[in-house]
This record gives sequence, structure tokens and C-alpha cells, in this order.
Amino acid sequence: MAAYETVIPVRFGHVDYAGIMFYPRFFDNFHAVFEDMFGARLGVPYMSILKERRIGFPTVRIETQFHRPFRFGEPMRLRIDCTRVGRSSIDFHYRAFHGDGREPSAEARATVVTVDLDTLKPIDIPPDIRAVLADLHD
Amino acid sequence: MAAYETVIPVRFGHVDYAGIMFYPRFFDNFHAVFEDMFGARLGVPYMSILKERRIGFPTVRIETQFHRPFRFGEPMRLRIDCTRVGRSSIDFHYRAFHGDGREPSAEARATVVTVDLDTLKPIDIPPDIRAVLADLHD
Amino acid sequence: MAAYETVIPVRFGHVDYAGIMFYPRFFDNFHAVFEDMFGARLGVPYMSILKERRIGFPTVRIETQFHRPFRFGEPMRLRIDCTRVGRSSIDFHYRAFHGDGREPSAEARATVVTVDLDTLKPIDIPPDIRAVLADLHD
Amino acid sequence: MAAYETVIPVRFGHVDYAGIMFYPRFFDNFHAVFEDMFGARLGVPYMSILKERRIGFPTVRIETQFHRPFRFGEPMRLRIDCTRVGRSSIDFHYRAFHGDGREPSAEARATVVTVDLDTLKPIDIPPDIRAVLADLHD
Repeated sequence: MAAYETVIPVRFGHVDYAGIMFYPRFFDNFHAVFEDMFGARLGVPYMSILKERRIGFPTVRIETQFHRPFRFGEPMRLRIDCTRVGRSSIDFHYRAFHGDGREPSAEARATVVTVDLDTLKPIDIPPDIRAVLADLHD
Repeated sequence: MAAYETVIPVRFGHVDYAGIMFYPRFFDNFHAVFEDMFGARLGVPYMSILKERRIGFPTVRIETQFHRPFRFGEPMRLRIDCTRVGRSSIDFHYRAFHGDGREPSAEARATVVTVDLDTLKPIDIPPDIRAVLADLHD
Repeated sequence: MAAYETVIPVRFGHVDYAGIMFYPRFFDNFHAVFEDMFGARLGVPYMSILKERRIGFPTVRIETQFHRPFRFGEPMRLRIDCTRVGRSSIDFHYRAFHGDGREPSAEARATVVTVDLDTLKPIDIPPDIRAVLADLHD
Repeated sequence: MAAYETVIPVRFGHVDYAGIMFYPRFFDNFHAVFEDMFGARLGVPYMSILKERRIGFPTVRIETQFHRPFRFGEPMRLRIDCTRVGRSSIDFHYRAFHGDGREPSAEARATVVTVDLDTLKPIDIPPDIRAVLADLHD
């Protein structure tokens, strides 16, 4: 296995008055690749983890660098890999590329915590999710 | 002068399936207090800086920590102060509080660069904006 | 009692490349005044209706006219009144004004249905909500 | 030629506390298929119409019906066709389907006006855009 990738176009509603992606919208895209990765690798929709298993993954920390702006219409290639798996916390590395570019145009390092969705208290990462994360690397 | 504050309610459209603020929405609110601060302290709407003076402030780096979730309906008190002013770059510190709470429930440190909006190249911070930033501290 | 109003500024993240409010954002604001109205008139947060009583109000129809654009920084005054209350369905009239203007710059007529949030099936409008709606008129 | 279609997944950030698509997000998706159609049929990015030709298409009226909710993870198939072309105004019909479904789960009829982006005044629809619209029907 390897890091997971998806491509999302930069939409009109995501660019600002200057015609470049409004920076909060990057985080929507980081979340999108996170969702898609779980769906693809776990073989069940991300929502079923929340809805049926009552597990959530709130972000507790994210450090982001924006190297080069994205303009309307450009395809954003998003890549997620996992750099650390703790008992309940997980570190992800997100990268956003212009098309087939090698150097990321934006990147983020995030820590999420696995929680009981009803109490929002940390829980141990379940084995099937841990297995997905163990394979999610470059 | 001092740090600048505004209060924004946590809206239904900002909370996720778990009933807590979806983390990308925090960045919308950080931008909101940034806009409001410029409008209030500079005495002209933030948009006039972009539209008439063709100056923009893209974010190049932001490090964020989420300590405690915000639930729908809770008022989010947002505070912005400036921690460094360079030739064209500026460091801001954002804090989000639950109501009158003393400890921030989320906080971010961001670097923005002052640019020519048409070329997106860095420019020197204009004196009137520099004066506003010099007063924007705790 | 009367129609309910709130004021929401047009934010940078809500305007498009042309500097005017991106039309999908009007619906976020219509929902905001809907939420605020329930909170103010019912005396409990809108979220408690959903979370504790498991009642929701999905929109099934909305007809909208945009007469005059809103530019960044302009305050949008939003007004909601109720024009019909059925057994489970409710018609609302939304208007968005430029500041103190008399003529709406945008307006919408929407039908929502009162549902059980878990089954999404229609239910009778509860008496306390019906009482609020009976007073929500010009 | 024919109506134009695209598929957009229902993202976590688009669903509400009830786990169904928050209704303002439908309009983001209607705009997305509008953008994609122009890019595909005109052979140039939608943004170039705005940026280089200074032409915009503000929505002046939209009537929408929501028949069946979309849940997180479901693919939304969006279809746009043109039902009327005037001198400067255009009527579009949007439909959102659950996957390969035949009956639309949501649909909208919108009128947009072709304007000079700087003055926001109506202009005649340019011939190349008129040709695209003439082919955009079921």
C-alpha cells in the first residue's frame, strides 16, 4: 500500500476576490482526502464509522504551509499519509500539488484523536483502522 | 490600543454530524476577525484595501491548536493580535474563546505576506497599515 | 410579536471574484436568521430542538429572487416571517435588505417540513413551535 | 450535443447534524456543474470568461425543490440543460440524482443574466456562448 491520493478541482466558490483559493478552503480539501482514504482503504464509507460505530476523529493540531497559490480551475492533487500512530492519536501529513507537480504547493501536518462520538473522550484506535494506518505511508 | 475582538455565533451550517464546529470553519472565523480588525482600526472597509489599493494578504503559514470543541449555538469570542511586523510579512496570533472564558479553546499563529494583488509579489507594508499593526498587541 | 430580524455582515469569504456575494451564501444567511429566530422566540437554542427533541426542519422548496447584489463589507439585514402553518409544513418568507433599505435586495419563499430527525418522516408541529410561528408575521 | 453532467460526492463538510446534505450546499453543486459545463463545452476554463473577457453571470432567480435527501458519501449526479436563451438572460434547469436514478432528487430552475463584470450591467450574450447554450438541451 502507499499514501492515498485524490484530485479535486478548484471551484469558483473556493476562490476569493483575487482569484486564488481562499485559504480556509484548503482544510475542506484536506478533510476530503481524509474521508476518501478511509472509504477506499477500509472498504466502508467514512460515515459508517461515525454513524454505526460512533467513532470520530477531531483534529487537535494542524500546522500548514502555503507555498504557491491555486487559481480557479486548476486541479488540486491531494495526498495523505500517516506519520505516527499512537494509542488514540494519529499524525497525518497532507500535501496539495498542482497537477503532476513534484513539490507540494501546500502541506499540513495534523494530529487527530480517536474519540467516542457521544462523549468526545479518547478511545483506543480499533484494530481495523490501525491496520489501514499502518499501510498509509510513502 | 490593544488586541481586537469580535464575537461570532457557532451556526448550524458550521457544525458537523457530531454537533461540533467542523475544524475548517475556524479558519473562516479567524479571517473574519482579521477583516473586522482592519475595518475598525483603519477606518475603511477591508475590501477597499484590496479593491482600491490592490493590496492583498495571503496566508503563507498557520499553526493551529484546538483545545476544546465548540458546539452549535455557543458564542465564539475571537481575538487577534500582532506579534511581529517585518518588511512585508506579518505574524498574527488568533484566539477563540468560549464566551468570557480566560483560556483559549483554539488558537493559531499565522504569517501573512503583504502583496500586490495583481502580481501576488511581496511589497513593503504601507505606513498606515504598519501603524495599525504597531498598536495591535495585548 | 412580529417578523424577526438579524444583521450579518457580508464577509470576504462570501464574496466571489467579482466582489459580490456568491449566491449560494444567501441560503446560509437565510438559515442563520431561521436559527436565530427560533433561539430568540422559543427561548431555547435551535440545536436543542434537534438534539434533545429529535425534530428537524428540512427545506423542501425555496423560490428566490436576487434584485441587487451585496458587496463585501455591506451589512445584510435579514428578516423572516411565517406566511402559512400547516399540519407539519410551514411557509417562511425571507428578505435581505441593504442596511436600512425598505425594498428587499433579495427574497425567498420557502417551505419546510417538520420531521422526526431519526426517520425523516413528517410529524405534527408541536404546540410550542406552533405558537412561535403564529406570532411571526408582519 | 446534450445536457451536461458531472458527479460530485456528498462530503462530510456538506452534511448537517442529521447526516443529510445541508440545503445551501446544493447551490454550490449547481454552480459547480455550471462551471464544468462551460469549461467542457466552450473549451476554455470558466474563469477565463470572467478574468479575460470580464463577463459574469449573476443569478437573478432560482426556484428549487428538494424531493429526497442526500446522505454523506452518496454520489450526486448533477445535470444542467438550458431551457431559454434571451438577449442577455438565460434559463437553466438543474437536476441532482442519486447515482443512476431516473427521477431527480432535487431540481432547480434558474435565470442568470450576462453582465459586464465591472459595471454589473447586462450585455448581449456573445456568439460563442450562445452557440454552447443552443446545444445544451435534453
